[in-house]
Amino acid sequence: MQPPDLLMIPGPTPLPDVVRTALGQPAMGHRSPEFKAILEDVLPGLQWAFKTEHPVLLYTASGTGAMEASLVNTLNPGDRVLALCCGIFSNRWADIGRLIGLDVTCITVPEGQANTVASLQQALHDDLSHPPAQRYKAVMLTHSETSTGVLNPLKELVRCIKAHGALSIVDAVTSLGAAEFAMDDWGIDLAVSGSQKGFMLPPGLAFLAVGPKAWEAHKQCKNPGYYFNFTKTKKAQAIFTTPYTPSTPLIIALQAALTLMKKEGLPAIVARHATLQGMVRAGLTQMGFSLMVPNDDIASPSVTSVYPMAHLSAPDLRAQLKQRFKITVADGQGVLKGKIFRVGHLGYISERDVLTTLEAIKRLV
Amino acid sequence: MQPPDLLMIPGPTPLPDVVRTALGQPAMGHRSPEFKAILEDVLPGLQWAFKTEHPVLLYTASGTGAMEASLVNTLNPGDRVLALCCGIFSNRWADIGRLIGLDVTCITVPEGQANTVASLQQALHDDLSHPPAQRYKAVMLTHSETSTGVLNPLKELVRCIKAHGALSIVDAVTSLGAAEFAMDDWGIDLAVSGSQKGFMLPPGLAFLAVGPKAWEAHKQCKNPGYYFNFTKTKKAQAIFTTPYTPSTPLIIALQAALTLMKKEGLPAIVARHATLQGMVRAGLTQMGFSLMVPNDDIASPSVTSVYPMAHLSAPDLRAQLKQRFKITVADGQGVLKGKIFRVGHLGYISERDVLTTLEAIKRLV
Repeated sequence: MQPPDLLMIPGPTPLPDVVRTALGQPAMGHRSPEFKAILEDVLPGLQWAFKTEHPVLLYTASGTGAMEASLVNTLNPGDRVLALCCGIFSNRWADIGRLIGLDVTCITVPEGQANTVASLQQALHDDLSHPPAQRYKAVMLTHSETSTGVLNPLKELVRCIKAHGALSIVDAVTSLGAAEFAMDDWGIDLAVSGSQKGFMLPPGLAFLAVGPKAWEAHKQCKNPGYYFNFTKTKKAQAIFTTPYTPSTPLIIALQAALTLMKKEGLPAIVARHATLQGMVRAGLTQMGFSLMVPNDDIASPSVTSVYPMAHLSAPDLRAQLKQRFKITVADGQGVLKGKIFRVGHLGYISERDVLTTLEAIKRLV
Repeated sequence: MQPPDLLMIPGPTPLPDVVRTALGQPAMGHRSPEFKAILEDVLPGLQWAFKTEHPVLLYTASGTGAMEASLVNTLNPGDRVLALCCGIFSNRWADIGRLIGLDVTCITVPEGQANTVASLQQALHDDLSHPPAQRYKAVMLTHSETSTGVLNPLKELVRCIKAHGALSIVDAVTSLGAAEFAMDDWGIDLAVSGSQKGFMLPPGLAFLAVGPKAWEAHKQCKNPGYYFNFTKTKKAQAIFTTPYTPSTPLIIALQAALTLMKKEGLPAIVARHATLQGMVRAGLTQMGFSLMVPNDDIASPSVTSVYPMAHLSAPDLRAQLKQRFKITVADGQGVLKGKIFRVGHLGYISERDVLTTLEAIKRLV
């Protein structure tokens, strides 16, 4: 006998039964009145989740697709941009930017540290030595850096970017539906998220909230592409349809997930993730583990990165957890592969799941 | 009491129970050994379906995303290309091409007609008056044009393109798993398909088969983009993973669908679609309907476009079929909206479904 898998990774999240049921429903035509009614419900639901009155574009893609979409739809080759880098996923902003011909400057902090307001302010201050037309057009940053478990001070960073005049382009993939996030109140211009994280869905949908300043930038954009084109997507969504065939089962499941999320409420969702985070951090510390992000103030509510012990390597711990208890925790990524393990506590995760995981790890230490 | 919906549209196809069950399974980590084992099975399975020994790239996107991917990964802005246009979806090749800066020439035939070898040969002959470096780099064409129900003579068209030296870039979205198709034997350089058609899956995955000449072209490509980047995708798939988080449930379901398809066998799948097509065409003709594509030789095995009768408009027929029998047939698209109806017979459709649909239409005539 084997128990079902317990996924304690920073996405894909485990799935609520109502989501699984929705995914397995019979096929629905994407141009049917029934499907239109679902879009009439989920598109405002996404605005609710981002806390925005502006359009949230819905793509059949992973979050990376929406990251690329946000750059190609608002910037032009040669534009100078600043990327705040603190791990694999924030580095991706710089990689995508360079590949599409942007002139990318990075502020990079070591793994486990957060980007700081002070270094951003310095860079934006230095930028004023450039003529206005050659200043940073955008700053790309990451709310929760999934590869290290760092939560950047998004609200404060965005305030600096706003004062400078650049667009703020935010990866909120593992923060939306887990950490406090307020698109409009914080003045964020563009924010990207994905279905397989706080939304308690499988991967396959990406969400892109676009504020008015980003729409203005889009109008100046020469190569917005086709599939991810903001204008085409906005025009279709305005009449509650999609420009191309969307992944219907994921959108039907999104309706089910948003219903759960609204019932719980965003403040309770944020509080739940804070509780889970606190349990994981306290529990592992008590067992003698060292956390990669010792400072609670910059620790992600979605994932906790942990150094292994001398007598128990990260790969061994992960393998034993999986073999003996069918619990999956994530490996490190890039240079951290095999060096740390990451406990996800994101999405459809309860206190009971965290208790179980901590108790299982305790048996291995 | 209402019976379940019967979707007789050219995609999304109805779903087999094993596919629905696969979609609703618990979440699986996309970097787990279990998921890797699935990719080890489905990637060769896709090669089997395309009849190719070359890589088939798997994208979390709709077919349109893969169409754009095939152009941006093999061509450069300013390149001259030829588009064979015969309806909404083949026109999309030209639209995408222009938007990404290609120099697009179209050969357009009226709705309901197929692109011909003669006009292609003429255009390719005329092209020889250009210096070699300025000749057509690619010809984009569509196997089954979903908006009209035309099947183009793909094998013969590709033979001409090959003789000329241009890349053949083929939309096989509604033909793969329905019509005869042979990537390698016919010498096709790039072919795109989607999950929600012959593969009996929901929308959300796109498949892109890339032959050796297309890989050579890719090496010369200056702006291949990030999310759809051929090199990144090929590199990841070579070790049975994906560069970014894929839509795991759709890939798990793809394994189930490919198992069904292999059991039936490609010749039997093609024969089944031919039978369904024949039943629909004969049945509707006997009732007095006129077919948009009267010539059997260029009729798609996936969808049949039909003119309404004087006393029964297409919108009325569609509405009554839906209200009284819960059967959905598709509307016309673009200029054909409201002017025709389209009966899909693609994917998870049996003779029984066609009999039912014909009998229901007979009650309305």
